[in-house]
Amino acid sequence: MTSQSPLFRKRLKSNAENVEAALAGLLSGEVRAGEIARPERLLAAIRHGVLNGGKRLRPFLVIESAALFGDAFAPAALRIGAALECVHCYSLVHDDLPAMDDDDLRRGQPTVHVAFDEAAAILAGDSLLTLAFETIAAPETALSDRIKTELVLSLARAAGIGGMAGGQALDLAAEKMAPDEAGIVTLQAMKTGALIRFACEAGAIIADADGATRARLRRYGETVGLAFQLADDLLDLTADAETMGKATGKDAARGKGTLVALKGQEWAERRLGELVDEAQALLAPFGERSAILVEAARFIANRRS
Amino acid sequence: MTSQSPLFRKRLKSNAENVEAALAGLLSGEVRAGEIARPERLLAAIRHGVLNGGKRLRPFLVIESAALFGDAFAPAALRIGAALECVHCYSLVHDDLPAMDDDDLRRGQPTVHVAFDEAAAILAGDSLLTLAFETIAAPETALSDRIKTELVLSLARAAGIGGMAGGQALDLAAEKMAPDEAGIVTLQAMKTGALIRFACEAGAIIADADGATRARLRRYGETVGLAFQLADDLLDLTADAETMGKATGKDAARGKGTLVALKGQEWAERRLGELVDEAQALLAPFGERSAILVEAARFIANRRS
Repeated sequence: MTSQSPLFRKRLKSNAENVEAALAGLLSGEVRAGEIARPERLLAAIRHGVLNGGKRLRPFLVIESAALFGDAFAPAALRIGAALECVHCYSLVHDDLPAMDDDDLRRGQPTVHVAFDEAAAILAGDSLLTLAFETIAAPETALSDRIKTELVLSLARAAGIGGMAGGQALDLAAEKMAPDEAGIVTLQAMKTGALIRFACEAGAIIADADGATRARLRRYGETVGLAFQLADDLLDLTADAETMGKATGKDAARGKGTLVALKGQEWAERRLGELVDEAQALLAPFGERSAILVEAARFIANRRS
Repeated sequence: MTSQSPLFRKRLKSNAENVEAALAGLLSGEVRAGEIARPERLLAAIRHGVLNGGKRLRPFLVIESAALFGDAFAPAALRIGAALECVHCYSLVHDDLPAMDDDDLRRGQPTVHVAFDEAAAILAGDSLLTLAFETIAAPETALSDRIKTELVLSLARAAGIGGMAGGQALDLAAEKMAPDEAGIVTLQAMKTGALIRFACEAGAIIADADGATRARLRRYGETVGLAFQLADDLLDLTADAETMGKATGKDAARGKGTLVALKGQEWAERRLGELVDEAQALLAPFGERSAILVEAARFIANRRS
């Protein structure tokens, strides 16, 4: 296992703190123009599902992708990263529901429907998804309306029926009939890949980069997304629940197909190495500025929790 | 009961047909740029929850509010109306879930979680909410990016924790402890009022009307929203399940407070008349062009299903 550079660790840590603060700001009790009231218990359920000290990997990718183009984009990238994290957290809150993956534990804490109730968890997720789009469009987000519109469109397509939500539907169906390799690839590209791809592409959208540059970051995001999922599948096989703070071995127990199950651990570890190399090659044109994103790919491929 | 003019009935009918067609277009199997695939069963669940021949009252209000400013806005207003209907339908699909209002029947058909399953209903709602924002931002919506951004922001604030979703949370809490009059007013303004208010204000946003005109349509929307809720509460007391195509008398059975229960049927009917007069007065500056919206207020106040 490769260890990260001190700079990378520092950036990951300060990023997580900044994102946590941004999310706490979005989830304050303050009633915004156009809102009527923020019901306390629902707000508490949302905060429970969001303000849990996560790594904030997706916002990290937004912020570091935008940083390729200069420091000026940092405040906007933090807002877009926080919006994306709202989408990610909504998906976790809903996926944990009894009718979906039925998980009681997340990051070592009771899930929202356990700590509150199912209705609160459904509404907390709904509110978070809505808040994501509100946050992109809000006047506080220092981007042009053209770029905001592009971000709303891209995030919606990554998160909706043709992306994450559709991927979760395929994942639930996979418990009944295990998909073949092509089916697993599609499922994973939708369920976890689409948001990670958006995170990396968002940096280029925020910086109004040209189409070729945007496509390059999009491919970097797809590559990192594949690595993320392979590492996740390896972890599900090998880690114990204590390390993960959530139930493990569930995919195997449910008979869900993964590429690791299909092609073996050795293949998966070799493939992870190739994906890191591909990610690095995609970033080469950015030169030294891309060192953090190269390390991010390695970090994601090697993560053990 | 007042009957509607032939013109009003014609407009309501053609509007419902246009909105149904627009929604069917949004919910086709065609995979959009940025999407990966549209899983068939999830798409079927979404279509079940949306393409059910509803009156499409909220899109009607968007389209007729925009029509105050001329015919040029009609195509964009139809898209925004369809987006708003996606939000409305998502809220019905989620509200019907066993953990929420637990309804098996809607418009005389099995609800989505009955026809499919709970997970499909949760994901169908999530997908529809996401699709609403995608539809506003999409290139096919012929509006400036500034106006699209404003619509995303206003719709999100009407639908999220400070609006509809928060209102549903208050409504579920009301089953345990009946709110006082002020509490009922807030709850209803959030749960049903906010989207109706947005529908009417959206016409002014689409047409880029000045602030005073926008505020006037917003107040018209609030007035019509109050009338809608009072009529709904009266219906819950008096209509039978066959007329409504859904369970009735449930609010009373659950001990939920309504203004009708608090102040009586006679008060409610008088108040409905006042609200129609207020709505008409608010529209007076628009002259003859507002005849349809005046009639819409009367239609909403007098509806019996």
